[in-house]
Amino acid sequence: MSASPLRPTALMTLEEALAQILSRATPIADIETVATESAVGRVLAHDLVAALDVPGFDNSQMDGYAVRCADVAAAAGQPLPVAQRIAAGQFGASLAPGTVARIFTGAPIPAGADAVVMQEDATAAEPARAEDAASGPYGWVRFADLPRPGQWVRRRGEDVAAGKVIVPAGTRLSPAHLGLAASVGVAQLAVVRRLRVALVTTGNELIQPGQCPPEELPPGAIYNSNRYFLEPLLRRLGCEVSVLPPVPDTRPATQAALLGAAASHDVIITTGGVSVGEADHVKPVVQALGALDSWQVAIKPGKPFAHGWIDRRNVAAEGRCHVLGLPGNPVSSFVTFILLARPFLLRLGGAAVAPTLPQTLPLTAQFEWPRPDKRREFLRVRLNAGGELELYPNQNSSVLTSVAWADGLVDNPPGRAIARGDTVRYLPLSALLE
Amino acid sequence: MSASPLRPTALMTLEEALAQILSRATPIADIETVATESAVGRVLAHDLVAALDVPGFDNSQMDGYAVRCADVAAAAGQPLPVAQRIAAGQFGASLAPGTVARIFTGAPIPAGADAVVMQEDATAAEPARAEDAASGPYGWVRFADLPRPGQWVRRRGEDVAAGKVIVPAGTRLSPAHLGLAASVGVAQLAVVRRLRVALVTTGNELIQPGQCPPEELPPGAIYNSNRYFLEPLLRRLGCEVSVLPPVPDTRPATQAALLGAAASHDVIITTGGVSVGEADHVKPVVQALGALDSWQVAIKPGKPFAHGWIDRRNVAAEGRCHVLGLPGNPVSSFVTFILLARPFLLRLGGAAVAPTLPQTLPLTAQFEWPRPDKRREFLRVRLNAGGELELYPNQNSSVLTSVAWADGLVDNPPGRAIARGDTVRYLPLSALLE
Repeated sequence: MSASPLRPTALMTLEEALAQILSRATPIADIETVATESAVGRVLAHDLVAALDVPGFDNSQMDGYAVRCADVAAAAGQPLPVAQRIAAGQFGASLAPGTVARIFTGAPIPAGADAVVMQEDATAAEPARAEDAASGPYGWVRFADLPRPGQWVRRRGEDVAAGKVIVPAGTRLSPAHLGLAASVGVAQLAVVRRLRVALVTTGNELIQPGQCPPEELPPGAIYNSNRYFLEPLLRRLGCEVSVLPPVPDTRPATQAALLGAAASHDVIITTGGVSVGEADHVKPVVQALGALDSWQVAIKPGKPFAHGWIDRRNVAAEGRCHVLGLPGNPVSSFVTFILLARPFLLRLGGAAVAPTLPQTLPLTAQFEWPRPDKRREFLRVRLNAGGELELYPNQNSSVLTSVAWADGLVDNPPGRAIARGDTVRYLPLSALLE
Repeated sequence: MSASPLRPTALMTLEEALAQILSRATPIADIETVATESAVGRVLAHDLVAALDVPGFDNSQMDGYAVRCADVAAAAGQPLPVAQRIAAGQFGASLAPGTVARIFTGAPIPAGADAVVMQEDATAAEPARAEDAASGPYGWVRFADLPRPGQWVRRRGEDVAAGKVIVPAGTRLSPAHLGLAASVGVAQLAVVRRLRVALVTTGNELIQPGQCPPEELPPGAIYNSNRYFLEPLLRRLGCEVSVLPPVPDTRPATQAALLGAAASHDVIITTGGVSVGEADHVKPVVQALGALDSWQVAIKPGKPFAHGWIDRRNVAAEGRCHVLGLPGNPVSSFVTFILLARPFLLRLGGAAVAPTLPQTLPLTAQFEWPRPDKRREFLRVRLNAGGELELYPNQNSSVLTSVAWADGLVDNPPGRAIARGDTVRYLPLSALLE
C-alpha cells in the first residue's frame, strides 16, 4: 500500500524539549556599548555596579522639622526656635544646640539633627521669653510627641549602596532598569549584540497578502500569516530580523537560500515542513549541510518542532548557524515559538533564562472543557472583569482568531477535564510577548 | 511664622482621577495607511472585515481517509478501495461511490465525502476478490468503527466567516492581530497616526548621566532618571517622543520651551514641579498660556498629578496641546504614568480604553504588610516559583530599585494590613508596559 501510515514517533514532554533546546543554546559572546537611553530590551553583558550611594546624603522623607531628639526631650513641650530653612538641593548649617530647622522632602539633614518631625505634628508657637524671638528667624515650634531617633530620615545609601550590583549581567533591560542605571550616573551600558535571525516560511500553498486579492486566490491556496506575527515577536525579543523572499520549491533553490542565510545569521527559523512525511526540501538540505533533529512534543497545539544547524564551512566561514523548525499551523507555530523558540533565543542572546516553563498563576475557570486531549493542552483564554477565565469557543489550531482574542493560555495537564469553578494554570501572554 | 504649613488639598480617589483624565482625551482623527507587517502596536482606525472564509474550503483536520459514511456502513467491515490521494494544496476528484480517498491534514475534502477517518483507525487490507485490486490504486482499507458524519472535517468559514469583523476599530494591534489580518489577505491597514509627545524633566537639582561623573556630583544634586524610563514607556505605547533639552530655570526660558513644544506636539509631559509649594515655572507658564489643574490623588506612591493645556493661538496655530504633569519622585512618576497617563495617551491615540483600572488577579501574599498607609498603596512585588507574591523589602518611592525588581504591583486598599497567606490584588506590570 503506497499510502503507508506515518511512522510512529516517540513523544517528548514539553519539559524534555525545553531542556534539550536550552542545552543547545551557547550564548553569543559579542558585546557592544550603547547609550543608556537606547538600551531598552537589550541584554546586559556585565553586572552593573553602583558607583555612588543613593541617596547620596541623609535626607528628609517629609516636609517638617529636622531636630535633635535630645533637645526636644530637654524642651519638655516648650517651644524651640526654627533657626534655618533647608529646601531640596540646599545644604543647611550644622544644627545649633537647642534649635530646629525647617526642612522639605528630599533636603539634606543638617549635621547635628537625628530625626524629622512631620509638619502635621508641629504647632507654631511663641517663645517663652519675648526677647528670645530673634533666635527663631523662621518662627518657633512646639512638638506634641517626642521623636524617635532616625524617624523620617532616609539614610545615605539606603536605596543603593556604592559598590553593590544593582542589575546583574544577563538581565533584559526594562524601562525601569534604564532609569535605575541613570540614577547612578551611568550613561552607557555594555550589552550583548542583537541576534541576527532569518525567517523562512515554506509551503507551496502559501500566497503573500497583497500578491493576489481574496477573490483570485487559487484553489487550495492560503495566505501566509506566520511571517506576520513571527517577525514582530522576534523584534520584541531584540533580534535583527531578515525576512527571506519566498523560496522556489526545489532543492537547489532551497539550498542556495539556506546557505546564504547561514553565512550572515545566527539562527534560521522555518515554519511548516517539519512534520514527518511532508514534501519538504528544508529538512534534507539542513541534514546535508549539518544536522537536524525533529521532535514530537506532547503538547496541543504545537506537536512538531525541530532544531539543527548548518555548518558554515559550506560557505567558507566559521561556526554554525542554528536552524529552528516551527510547525506550519499558525496557532501551533505561535505556541511553540513562545514556549520553546523564545527561551532558546533569549539564552543564545545572553539573557539569564530559567530552565523552567514560565510561571503560571492559579486562577478560576469560568468555562468547561469536558473532553480534554491526551496531550497537554494550551487553551486560549481571556480574563473577565471578575479576574476569572473565559475560553475562546473555537480552539482550532489553524487560525489565529483565538490567539488574537486571548490574553493568556491555560496550561492543562493531559487528560484533565475542566469544570466551571476549577482552579487552572493561567499563563499571561503579555509576559511572553515582551 | 514664615514657614507656614502647606495648605491642605482635597484628595481625589484614583477612580475619580481616571474618569477625569479620560474625559479630557478626545481621540485624534488623523488616519494613515501602513503595511500590515509594520503595524504592530498601532491602533486600528476602522473595523477589519474578512473578505473571505477561512478555511476557504472544507478540509481535513487529520491525516487519514475521506469517506462517505453511508458507504462505510454498507461495507459492513469489508475493505474499501483507496481510489485517490489528496495532499494539502491539491483538489481531489469527486468521491466515486464505494471508494475512499487518502487525505492529509489541511487538504480539501473531495465532493461526495462527509467525514474523515484518522489513519490510526484504519487498517491496510486486501480486497475480498483479487480481481478488484486495480480499483484501489492506493490500496484498500478496513475501518473498525463507523464514522460520524462531519467528523475531522473543518468546515469552510468555520474559523472566519467572510463579512465578519475580525478585529474591531480601536484595537492596538498585537503580533497575532497582524497574523490574523494576513490570513485574510490584508496587506495594508488603516491606523491612527502616532501621538507626538514632548518630554520635559524639570528640577535644578537634576544632572544628566554622562554630564559629570558620580565623584564630581555637586552637593545636593541627583541624576535625572525619569527621562530614561519615560521615553521607552512612551515609545512602547506607540508614541513619537521628543526629549527636550534641559530648560534653564527661568520663566522666559520655560515659556519659550513649552510654546515651541506645544506647536508641534499633541502632548507635553513634565515631571517634577507639580507639588504645591515647590519653586516651579512650568505651572504659572501653562496657566498663563492655557489652563492647568493640579490633583492630589489618594494613592501611594504617586500623589500629585496635573492635567492642562496650552492654547496654540499663542503660536499662531490651531487647537490645544495637552500638558500632563507627573510627580518628580521616580517611583511616583512610574506609577502615575502607568495608571493615569497611559490610559489617557491610549484614548487620545484612538485606542479603545475601558474606563476602569487594569484587571487585577487574586493571588496569595507571601509577605506581611502590618502598617498600611491611609492612602491606597501600590506595593512592588514579584511572583515566586509557587505563584505567590514576594514583597520588595524597600518600598521607598525615591529610587527605582523596587520597580526594576518587581514584575507587578499589589493594589492595596487604604488602611488594609496584609498577613502572610492573605489574598491580594496583583497587577502584572507586563500588561501595563506593552
